[in-house]
Amino acid sequence: MARWEPNARERLVRAALDLFTEQGYDATTVNEIADRAGLTKTTFFRHFPDKREVLFAGQDVHARLLADAITAAPSTATPLKTVGAALDALAATFTNDRREFSARLLPVIAGNSELQERAVFKHVGLAGAVTDALHKRGVPEPTASLAAELGMRAFDRAFGQWADPASQQTLTELARHALDELRAAAATLD
Amino acid sequence: MARWEPNARERLVRAALDLFTEQGYDATTVNEIADRAGLTKTTFFRHFPDKREVLFAGQDVHARLLADAITAAPSTATPLKTVGAALDALAATFTNDRREFSARLLPVIAGNSELQERAVFKHVGLAGAVTDALHKRGVPEPTASLAAELGMRAFDRAFGQWADPASQQTLTELARHALDELRAAAATLD
Repeated sequence: MARWEPNARERLVRAALDLFTEQGYDATTVNEIADRAGLTKTTFFRHFPDKREVLFAGQDVHARLLADAITAAPSTATPLKTVGAALDALAATFTNDRREFSARLLPVIAGNSELQERAVFKHVGLAGAVTDALHKRGVPEPTASLAAELGMRAFDRAFGQWADPASQQTLTELARHALDELRAAAATLD
Repeated sequence: MARWEPNARERLVRAALDLFTEQGYDATTVNEIADRAGLTKTTFFRHFPDKREVLFAGQDVHARLLADAITAAPSTATPLKTVGAALDALAATFTNDRREFSARLLPVIAGNSELQERAVFKHVGLAGAVTDALHKRGVPEPTASLAAELGMRAFDRAFGQWADPASQQTLTELARHALDELRAAAATLD
């Protein structure tokens, strides 16, 4: 009998991050995560297929945000300007109150190869969503996937900077700056 | 008591690919792989930490090849020319007799998300090795990691083309062509 649990998903994510931070990812079980969140294991598995996925729950939403922004960009925008608009849309969802969570998330991921691997797969998944959306605008290969890669690379770099508690800039500002840097670097490759 | 087994590593890799092709990756056990290779499970685990790693056994060797070629490239070479020299060195090891193996490898990886994920992690690992070697030549960020990414992207694309039994070109030719295409695409991003 499925009982409605308010904010179950978010409670599970926070409980998981707390436990991973306190006692390590490997040492934490799904049971403990559910307990800490005041929920059952069954509820956990209604939201996530396994322990690892808890920290990557936003991937589908992020992919849609990016793709929608690309579809909505002016038809005259260059591939990289289009990607820039997508990063703006995604970055805007990372409001300041999410910074502390992100600051704790990154070291947990960095400390575990299974999570690092999943993070890389998320990066590639989001780049794939951006690439598909660029294709629909008529951007050919390999330009589309290259623009997508630069975009997600800029976002990852900006996210790491933004998660630093000492950072004063918004994620939007940092992502724009990172994309500008990559654009400049692309011109010095050869 | 460790018994010396001639070509154990290669026999295990071939047995694994045969079994993954015949009955699927998920349905295949380490015991079956060892049996098929005429070896023991203990021998398997002397060579590989788990079933998934069997198909990615070359990663360390590839990383070293790439890094060594970058170190050996003329000091006047641009970042992308340096990466091109590294791809030449790696591609030269994929002689024509390895094409049939590669042709069977790619669909097995494409058919399983765990293997896809591992392949992405290999891509990132090799790009990391290239990036580190470029840093040692004084190539700054984000130019170094961007050049490395373009290189590995070109290699992956060329590898997919080369593995096609209908392909007549060498992996070296295909990788050079793919890198040229990416170089041209980088100029049309913005």
